[in-house]
Amino acid sequence: MTASIPSATTSFPAPPTDSKQKVGDFLRQLQDSICQGLEQLDSQQTFHEDSWERPEGGGGRSRVMRDGSVFEQGGVNFSEVWGTQLPPSILKQRPEAAGHGFYATGTSMVLHPRNPYVPTVHLNYRYFEAGSVWWFGGGIDLTPYYPFVEDVVHFHQTLKEACDRHHPEYYPTFKLWCDEYFYLKHRQETRGVGGIFFDYQDGQGDLYRGPDPEGLAAQHSQQVGTPPQRSWEDLFGFVQSCGNAFLPAYVPIAQKRQNTEYGERERNFQLYRRGRYVEFNLVYDRGTIFGLQTNGRTESILMSLPPLVRWEYGYEPKPNTPESELYTTFLKPQDWLSGAVQP
Amino acid sequence: MTASIPSATTSFPAPPTDSKQKVGDFLRQLQDSICQGLEQLDSQQTFHEDSWERPEGGGGRSRVMRDGSVFEQGGVNFSEVWGTQLPPSILKQRPEAAGHGFYATGTSMVLHPRNPYVPTVHLNYRYFEAGSVWWFGGGIDLTPYYPFVEDVVHFHQTLKEACDRHHPEYYPTFKLWCDEYFYLKHRQETRGVGGIFFDYQDGQGDLYRGPDPEGLAAQHSQQVGTPPQRSWEDLFGFVQSCGNAFLPAYVPIAQKRQNTEYGERERNFQLYRRGRYVEFNLVYDRGTIFGLQTNGRTESILMSLPPLVRWEYGYEPKPNTPESELYTTFLKPQDWLSGAVQP
Repeated sequence: MTASIPSATTSFPAPPTDSKQKVGDFLRQLQDSICQGLEQLDSQQTFHEDSWERPEGGGGRSRVMRDGSVFEQGGVNFSEVWGTQLPPSILKQRPEAAGHGFYATGTSMVLHPRNPYVPTVHLNYRYFEAGSVWWFGGGIDLTPYYPFVEDVVHFHQTLKEACDRHHPEYYPTFKLWCDEYFYLKHRQETRGVGGIFFDYQDGQGDLYRGPDPEGLAAQHSQQVGTPPQRSWEDLFGFVQSCGNAFLPAYVPIAQKRQNTEYGERERNFQLYRRGRYVEFNLVYDRGTIFGLQTNGRTESILMSLPPLVRWEYGYEPKPNTPESELYTTFLKPQDWLSGAVQP
Repeated sequence: MTASIPSATTSFPAPPTDSKQKVGDFLRQLQDSICQGLEQLDSQQTFHEDSWERPEGGGGRSRVMRDGSVFEQGGVNFSEVWGTQLPPSILKQRPEAAGHGFYATGTSMVLHPRNPYVPTVHLNYRYFEAGSVWWFGGGIDLTPYYPFVEDVVHFHQTLKEACDRHHPEYYPTFKLWCDEYFYLKHRQETRGVGGIFFDYQDGQGDLYRGPDPEGLAAQHSQQVGTPPQRSWEDLFGFVQSCGNAFLPAYVPIAQKRQNTEYGERERNFQLYRRGRYVEFNLVYDRGTIFGLQTNGRTESILMSLPPLVRWEYGYEPKPNTPESELYTTFLKPQDWLSGAVQP
């Protein structure tokens, strides 16, 4: 591992000279391996690719699968863009990056399965450089309609193992950040059962850089102390582990649930709950807002939206049904690995 | 008409002492008359009302019709809320209102017809007071799927007549503002064929208070000069005319098109185009953002979202079809009353 040399002008650990190449190559290969794994799982459909260029610099490869046996729609995007100035939404968070050209690359994915017993899943890993500033961000989260505790535990356990290989504080901190980020304030619901989420990981200071309205992360970091400075290579290795954890975290769940029988009731509930996905992505999601603000490719950005969605005024699940259990147990932050939530 | 007496501390024309009562009463009655007119039109279903209170002050009446003969879903809301401080999104536009308690009332409506030949329509009229600052805002716009030029002309002509009774500059200015406001930048499309839109009408100075990226309104107002100061009563009268113009502007169109035959192709296109409505409301709409920021009643705010929606990656209409004509002719700002757009 290359030693991290703090830059002369800032306190950011210096990235290697070929940092963009390295991350770009990894994220491109991540898109390939994910698509391959999902085609194997679906067995009926394959991904179709559109390559595109961004007039202001850069481009990407959008891949979409439709009407598969498992996936009603799935999109996996890779993009690599550059320009003279980061958009306002990001500069507000990273004012040090102002006045510098930027490079941003990312792989993102959203899968909308047909069977309501198979959860929707989202992944996004990304990297930014602007002047001497750089950071990694991303995460993965699961959105079931008819959830099983054992599936949620498997998903979180797989992510925890990937995190623990790099730092014992990654999983608890980024799990908490995920619960906080994928939260629909206007619904007072989490988007699903969470996963991990992180942003602005530049090797310095606190892991957590979210708004933390509840003060949970601050409390937590008082208990465990501040983690040591991490090099660019440390963080890149961590992001690689996270990306590679997707297939083992998700595929076994989809395999187990894809043939579960369902009827109109389950399908209607799935379409209704997909509305929350749209609400989150259009109202809150940082990646969507970044894409639309930087004149990104709209069709690729909005590929995350479900193929068919229902809204119903005043809907509430009947008490003591699987639908109400989703709300009362699963759409609240839970410590899934403590064994406290019983099937 | 009561004379307008400029306040001692600001240059805003003073409202009458019972201003809130007057506007609240009118907007409540507007909800009643609209619902009555729409029930007559639908003939099969009626509106169901939920009354609600807002913990921080105020409340409203949400009315929804579902599975009607004409309307797959229609919502008409009245609300009247107050509190200690306007939300940031509004204070940014009206910094004079900071530090004052506020009162806000509005009637808003979105109708999603079942038949793809009947256009979706939206209306919203609202009033704010905070300290000595007050203003009216609102508008109405039409979103057809399979449009007819004569319907668009009828809609705009009816609005123009309502506007012209108050000031000859209202229609051209507010029509332009509507085209600009109901614009999906990420799609480079207008939401529909427009109508009128205005905000921050406080009796002073320029009618137009939008961002005007094209400089059109500024050019226009140089040509016609600045309109005279208008009293609170002038503006209230104007908003009344606008509100009352809705039924004559829309009902004849719905009556004419509600029995047009259609098949799966038209239905699929309607569901797809409804996606744009969702995108606009969640990404850009001022009313939605205000509602969600002020801890408004989510179900009432999101009642504007369509009951069933489709997204399709990479969809483009085939050339020389009615679907492509929607894009090439109708989803661009047009001077509908000049006779330039021929059926």
